[in-house]
Amino acid sequence: MAQPDTARLLIACDDQPGIVAAVAGVLAEHGANIISLDQHSTDAAGGRFFQRTVIHLDGLAAARPALEASLSRVAERFGMEWSLHDAARRKRVAIFVSRYDHCLMELLWRTQRGQLDIDVSMVVSNHPDLAAAVRSFGVPFVHIPSGNGAEEKAEMERRQLELLRGNVDLVVLARYMQILTDDFIERLDAPVINIHHSFLPAFIGANPYARAKDRGVKLIGATAHYATADLDEGPIIEQDVTRVTHAESAAELQLRGADVERLVLARAVQWHAEDRVIVHGRSTVIL
Amino acid sequence: MAQPDTARLLIACDDQPGIVAAVAGVLAEHGANIISLDQHSTDAAGGRFFQRTVIHLDGLAAARPALEASLSRVAERFGMEWSLHDAARRKRVAIFVSRYDHCLMELLWRTQRGQLDIDVSMVVSNHPDLAAAVRSFGVPFVHIPSGNGAEEKAEMERRQLELLRGNVDLVVLARYMQILTDDFIERLDAPVINIHHSFLPAFIGANPYARAKDRGVKLIGATAHYATADLDEGPIIEQDVTRVTHAESAAELQLRGADVERLVLARAVQWHAEDRVIVHGRSTVIL
Amino acid sequence: MAQPDTARLLIACDDQPGIVAAVAGVLAEHGANIISLDQHSTDAAGGRFFQRTVIHLDGLAAARPALEASLSRVAERFGMEWSLHDAARRKRVAIFVSRYDHCLMELLWRTQRGQLDIDVSMVVSNHPDLAAAVRSFGVPFVHIPSGNGAEEKAEMERRQLELLRGNVDLVVLARYMQILTDDFIERLDAPVINIHHSFLPAFIGANPYARAKDRGVKLIGATAHYATADLDEGPIIEQDVTRVTHAESAAELQLRGADVERLVLARAVQWHAEDRVIVHGRSTVIL
Amino acid sequence: MAQPDTARLLIACDDQPGIVAAVAGVLAEHGANIISLDQHSTDAAGGRFFQRTVIHLDGLAAARPALEASLSRVAERFGMEWSLHDAARRKRVAIFVSRYDHCLMELLWRTQRGQLDIDVSMVVSNHPDLAAAVRSFGVPFVHIPSGNGAEEKAEMERRQLELLRGNVDLVVLARYMQILTDDFIERLDAPVINIHHSFLPAFIGANPYARAKDRGVKLIGATAHYATADLDEGPIIEQDVTRVTHAESAAELQLRGADVERLVLARAVQWHAEDRVIVHGRSTVIL
Repeated sequence: MAQPDTARLLIACDDQPGIVAAVAGVLAEHGANIISLDQHSTDAAGGRFFQRTVIHLDGLAAARPALEASLSRVAERFGMEWSLHDAARRKRVAIFVSRYDHCLMELLWRTQRGQLDIDVSMVVSNHPDLAAAVRSFGVPFVHIPSGNGAEEKAEMERRQLELLRGNVDLVVLARYMQILTDDFIERLDAPVINIHHSFLPAFIGANPYARAKDRGVKLIGATAHYATADLDEGPIIEQDVTRVTHAESAAELQLRGADVERLVLARAVQWHAEDRVIVHGRSTVIL
Repeated sequence: MAQPDTARLLIACDDQPGIVAAVAGVLAEHGANIISLDQHSTDAAGGRFFQRTVIHLDGLAAARPALEASLSRVAERFGMEWSLHDAARRKRVAIFVSRYDHCLMELLWRTQRGQLDIDVSMVVSNHPDLAAAVRSFGVPFVHIPSGNGAEEKAEMERRQLELLRGNVDLVVLARYMQILTDDFIERLDAPVINIHHSFLPAFIGANPYARAKDRGVKLIGATAHYATADLDEGPIIEQDVTRVTHAESAAELQLRGADVERLVLARAVQWHAEDRVIVHGRSTVIL
Repeated sequence: MAQPDTARLLIACDDQPGIVAAVAGVLAEHGANIISLDQHSTDAAGGRFFQRTVIHLDGLAAARPALEASLSRVAERFGMEWSLHDAARRKRVAIFVSRYDHCLMELLWRTQRGQLDIDVSMVVSNHPDLAAAVRSFGVPFVHIPSGNGAEEKAEMERRQLELLRGNVDLVVLARYMQILTDDFIERLDAPVINIHHSFLPAFIGANPYARAKDRGVKLIGATAHYATADLDEGPIIEQDVTRVTHAESAAELQLRGADVERLVLARAVQWHAEDRVIVHGRSTVIL
Repeated sequence: MAQPDTARLLIACDDQPGIVAAVAGVLAEHGANIISLDQHSTDAAGGRFFQRTVIHLDGLAAARPALEASLSRVAERFGMEWSLHDAARRKRVAIFVSRYDHCLMELLWRTQRGQLDIDVSMVVSNHPDLAAAVRSFGVPFVHIPSGNGAEEKAEMERRQLELLRGNVDLVVLARYMQILTDDFIERLDAPVINIHHSFLPAFIGANPYARAKDRGVKLIGATAHYATADLDEGPIIEQDVTRVTHAESAAELQLRGADVERLVLARAVQWHAEDRVIVHGRSTVIL
């Protein structure tokens, strides 16, 4: 999956005539070939415009400054937010985990096989249990206990931030059972993807499988979303469900759901890794 | 699908040893052959026990009183609730509708083709719009306007009850846009199946497609449930979902969702028609 | 869904640098705003390039000749096949049917509701059975019997071609039980979409549900494809499946499958109607 | 999931009145409580009858001989095939594998977590590559090379049979790239479950993903089936599919399909482990 001399250009701006032509023109000028281009307007008449363009450009590293200068000029003209990502540079990821290992193992396993384009820089846990399993993949495991009081919690977050800042491009909460403080999310300076074990917005909060059993739903699901200060309210990246019946207990729903969780989280992380996800208000555009 | 001399026996009781044997023994004694038997216990140790047994019994009509007498004795011994349904007697159904016709048409169409084992006795609507479409199926259409105030609403329900009581075995709300009063549901003396245009418990209440778009979900769904006094809180019979993307507007979600609604409702009504659904607290057992 | 001053530009050519920029440049030059743009390359290095661009251009009818002249020049430069479709001009469709009505009714029903952007010009059948049902939608029904021998078949096709040529843009075989001759397909001069009642390439040919039951598959499906001289071998537009169990008879599989057939066919026809489908060898690109 | 004093009774016979009552009677006589009972008749009128009954019987080991004697008498009367499985005795499984590890790892992983009720006795491979991965689960890995000629193949199978006979209750081919000879299957004296990487009967044989890409299908799938002398023709236990588009290459289809393969195989093995699968001719009944 290594893609030398390949970059992904993400842009977002108010919709207006001429954007595609202007950007394609700049790219052509610099000798960049468009490998794929996806765009989305929130509204046929006006609204917000999003575009992801994958380009191939011989000698990308050398050519990049000039290309960026030209893109800046176009961006200014159209009022664009934009970013250019080198496809060869994998994102550095920290995985946060507590005791459930299914989401963690799925991510490690896929990364090992080359199915997930990330570098797992470290696994951070408030429990020591999964140290051996993680280290068998050659990945550092850091145990930072959560303690009981507000002070211990603050200390835990301080130590986590020390580890993470500057070292990672993404944090993945792989069934991490601690709630992140707003302060932590703000100071982290990297996006956070969480997996919630229900089809949001159904069963926000704790114990979704028990509540699903209690409500008698016929499908259970999982949701991967960016974590924000509001619990389980961040922009949704991916969701999926599986069919269940009256015959399954809450414990069985949890086992069945675990399979959905790990696939949904793996898809969301891969899309993020490929720079396919653009946040738009409370929702996401997947290009 | 006509099944002469066929009956469905539903039983529910506290789980205890010997139920299956006792019931099967009575059926064998009366010469009834078991065509299919499904059962469910809510808990391996104790809990509630449910069973649906389809039997074939030559000369069912004549043999029924004696069989019922024997079943009564077994039922008393085990503390069972039970009912015996003649498979040849289709349930008489009233469909309530407002202006959306997709769920209504699906039910009429399937009934006409023999895919839905019900007799549609009448369609009741608070709007006159669908009269011709309904009557083209040879089904009576009754327009009972809703009016504006509490009094008109009470008058509407009084007229509806007059029409329904004694005449129907089931009321289906096929995107009926009026809320039934508790009083109506109690006095109706027949179960009511409603289709809600979301994957409950997500988006309870009004405008679920707009709220789904706003929340940025990646799947939309529909839920068929028995109507109870609590809005959208009745026991769920069936649910399904379909995948959507950021590219679809709320109006497009509504069109996509309409296809899910009509299939989910048709399945729920058919299962009810086949006496497969047993309510257990807030949920259902489908046998 | 009416979209005045909107057109869809489809292009296909060998992949090469600068295509997107050149086309976007021409469109910008003529004052056309790009509403959406989807493209696909069969191979990152070379291969075939496909693009669907939806544009808005004030005064489309008047501006079209000049735009087409410019597009011709670009097309020549890149060796493109291209076509420009006015979104306001619905395709004229003939539906062929025999006795099964579920696919036909789904298409008529969706068209009536504005969920399918086609004009149904006529329904052609080798049986008279569905005349009343079709005419109740205000659509002409033409009964052309198939007869028994080769001569009658040739006569039937001759009469069909007479009806169709120049009058329709698409023929949909909605469970039409006659095999079209190669000669018919060649002379028709319009694409033909067929629905096959299996998940192709499984169960090519006759009686797929009976064969699915016999083979004990756990999912049954349907396939919408362009009809070609080779039976059931044309480019696939859409497929879907539904889960079945050992408990369902071949007759029940057929009922269950009918629901998949009608949704799959409706999606395929709608995508064709929106100029989303480009044939590439034995397969399709859906943009 | 350990279930002491629990057994599963499977029966199959020609359908006839009184089976359920007779079996339930015997179970009640011996003090066995029916936890669940599922049955299936291939035909409402006659046909073949199948039943799976899960029972709880205090002191199962001691009570078993007397129960079996009574069951034998009933079985003789109705011409039944039957078997009684102690739920506490997990099946001993050998997993055959070549180089692909995804199905193998899924099975090992689920077993380790208690999600799969089997004992993995050994992993047998014609390649040494996966030795370390397997042994890290505490499972023996046996490398038996395949060699090149007919003689080496015969020698390989001889060594495999030596290892397996008497030691395992099930062999699972987890993307094992060698074809088993008829002779091997006959002499093995244990069922064999294979995972095929397509939705059978589509793409029987080699390279299904490449052929799926070439045919342009819109869904790809996987099939778990009992292996028989006829390649890919054995009774199907489970199948599933996932949606793909024109944009995915054959290599990407293979990655996407791998996720379906491992879930389908895991479900099939678990159902077999729970004695839910009864073979009926070319198909299976899942109770």
